[in-house]
Amino acid sequence: MKHTLSVLVEDESGALSRISGLFARRGFNIESLAVGPAELKGQSRLTMVVKGNDLTLEQMTKQLDKLLNVLQVSDLTMKPAVERELMLLKVSAPPQQRSAILELVQVFRSKVVDFADEALTLEVVGDPGKLVALENLLKPYGILEIVRTGKVALERASGINTEMLKSSTNSGSFPA
Amino acid sequence: MKHTLSVLVEDESGALSRISGLFARRGFNIESLAVGPAELKGQSRLTMVVKGNDLTLEQMTKQLDKLLNVLQVSDLTMKPAVERELMLLKVSAPPQQRSAILELVQVFRSKVVDFADEALTLEVVGDPGKLVALENLLKPYGILEIVRTGKVALERASGINTEMLKSSTNSGSFPA
Repeated sequence: MKHTLSVLVEDESGALSRISGLFARRGFNIESLAVGPAELKGQSRLTMVVKGNDLTLEQMTKQLDKLLNVLQVSDLTMKPAVERELMLLKVSAPPQQRSAILELVQVFRSKVVDFADEALTLEVVGDPGKLVALENLLKPYGILEIVRTGKVALERASGINTEMLKSSTNSGSFPA
Repeated sequence: MKHTLSVLVEDESGALSRISGLFARRGFNIESLAVGPAELKGQSRLTMVVKGNDLTLEQMTKQLDKLLNVLQVSDLTMKPAVERELMLLKVSAPPQQRSAILELVQVFRSKVVDFADEALTLEVVGDPGKLVALENLLKPYGILEIVRTGKVALERASGINTEMLKSSTNSGSFPA
């Protein structure tokens, strides 16, 4: 099962190395990782997606918590959370393919962020599933380059579970 | 000077640990890091922002290139590139503060992704400068939690330099 861990750390050289080292020694592959400044100066928040069974991940969480510079660890997997990822995707787009691609851009509420004679670069935000769906649809046109941020997540203050929302509404404009 | 490095790696347990270890041993602090799947199966692309002088960073780039599982390293700092970051921000928003916050949301083309009695969670995409600007404006309301993905970047196929665009147009709707 995939787990989403949110880890608050002090900005110290070596903090990231210790965390990734802990997972490497156990043979874990970190599927995605996003690290950026948190709400307090001198602290960063890491969001990582790791595959493993619940028991192993629980042990890892405890070990993470004991590492130098690690301030807080939470497993958001089973909590109601907002989950988002950003992707930039460069796709081959000679003039005769352009309109078809731009239609997809619109449906996915994506944005064209660079327009060249033979290629378009798109910005897409969504849950990881949406990003993969767009990627698959664009494959036949020739994907040149992809960069993804990895997922970030915040626990919902509303306590509302996204999965529940997904099954109860089809409205794309519902805050989800 | 801040450098933006884009690193293509094979998905192997330990790849991330070796990369972050290289920076840690030299006392570098990785300011932001984003890791996600690249365009080919079994490969990931890392985007990292690191502070350092040009010469040191050039040496680091060469050493990175020699690491096991590292397939390609490029320094995008001086190249025309699309640069984006995603932030989720939870801000205290009791009913009497809500309208003021929602106005800011609109101006920054941000989105409300969770709505609770006392807090709003926003999704914002932009260059890191935009994210910091919104964060500063929301500070007086009480920021509860922030998670950022770190910057991702792709070289522009159009070869057009963003900084040049910024100085030549004020239009917010221009693809930039």
